[in-house]
Amino acid sequence: MSSHHIVRDDQEPALIIANGAACSRELTDQLLEWSPLVIVLDNAIERVMELGIKIDVLLGDFDGGLDIEKYKDLQYPLEVVYSPDQEKTDLEKAFDYLIERKIPAVNVIWATGKRADHTITNITNIVRYRNLIKIVILDDHSKIFLLHQKFEKWYPANTPISLIPIGKVSGISTQNLKYPLTDEELTIGYRTGSSNTTVNDGIVTIEYKKGDLLMMECFD
Amino acid sequence: MSSHHIVRDDQEPALIIANGAACSRELTDQLLEWSPLVIVLDNAIERVMELGIKIDVLLGDFDGGLDIEKYKDLQYPLEVVYSPDQEKTDLEKAFDYLIERKIPAVNVIWATGKRADHTITNITNIVRYRNLIKIVILDDHSKIFLLHQKFEKWYPANTPISLIPIGKVSGISTQNLKYPLTDEELTIGYRTGSSNTTVNDGIVTIEYKKGDLLMMECFD
Repeated sequence: MSSHHIVRDDQEPALIIANGAACSRELTDQLLEWSPLVIVLDNAIERVMELGIKIDVLLGDFDGGLDIEKYKDLQYPLEVVYSPDQEKTDLEKAFDYLIERKIPAVNVIWATGKRADHTITNITNIVRYRNLIKIVILDDHSKIFLLHQKFEKWYPANTPISLIPIGKVSGISTQNLKYPLTDEELTIGYRTGSSNTTVNDGIVTIEYKKGDLLMMECFD
Repeated sequence: MSSHHIVRDDQEPALIIANGAACSRELTDQLLEWSPLVIVLDNAIERVMELGIKIDVLLGDFDGGLDIEKYKDLQYPLEVVYSPDQEKTDLEKAFDYLIERKIPAVNVIWATGKRADHTITNITNIVRYRNLIKIVILDDHSKIFLLHQKFEKWYPANTPISLIPIGKVSGISTQNLKYPLTDEELTIGYRTGSSNTTVNDGIVTIEYKKGDLLMMECFD
């Protein structure tokens, strides 16, 4: 088993391994290296074991009949969080667990791919954690996060940038994007800001007044 | 090359092969068998050629420098639709093309997976075609379509059913679902109807008053 247990600050983002399609081993390893705490959701533990990854927390309702004792032994020490609440997804329960532990940021992998209902729910539900925990969802083609009402970051020219409104988002203005927005509205299903790009090497600014706007940095 | 060109009614759904992750060959073949018209979006033609599929229409802006003449020759007869409009995705342009040809229904594959911005845009943008063309997006784990304001269909007991609101959807009532809704509201990002299931073998009824509600029949 690879070990990620050198001493680290709890301020580094935790890592949640969800139950969708696996990402590349390279991306997994890159995120594991910096994560002080690794949480796996329910049955995903079976695929995680095959990769020889040491984890810290196993969370789920375990209604698929997982042999918890076996994993407690193989992954010792392992915290098992039994979370039977049917009103929330396992991913939401993992966010709640981290918030309870006052961990400020988390990266999430394996949250996309496979079932489209899980993919769209996992991506869009991050908006309800706006002021509670900083969430970044990653897969081999995408990096997804909720934008604060004013966002500024340096990007190289011609970087693909997609702005996806979760519902209706108003008062959006941008700088240094090829298709600029000036106090405009985006509405999911009707007008989104997918497939924009940066113009110059430099700061991209995105501001909005109302709603929840996701940033997606995606590449083929 | 396999041929799907036995005589068929134009009322069978057309098939669009988009530019996301490929689905299983089995699903592709199953849909090809019944499709009177097969449209491929831009660069996806390269992967489609490797599968030896005969297509009818190649549509895109071709800014990736595709050798159109080569494909015209290899896929003869092939209609090439050059669509440079940067305001629409290739998938939307393909829907417009089919509407123009008065084709009433279309199945779409390869529209999910890979880039999350494309996946979420492809899935959610189907709502704007509500009264124009019947669209079903399929992948190896999902069947996605927009619900009419009253939907009734027979399902076996314990079938997973997810109701995903694209924005805010109000006045939703259901029958024969495990987590029933009675004149309730769902809002993307905040309250969705993901991971419901049918109770009994029989008719499921879903009604709603306002907004756009997607049905996702998904399986692991």
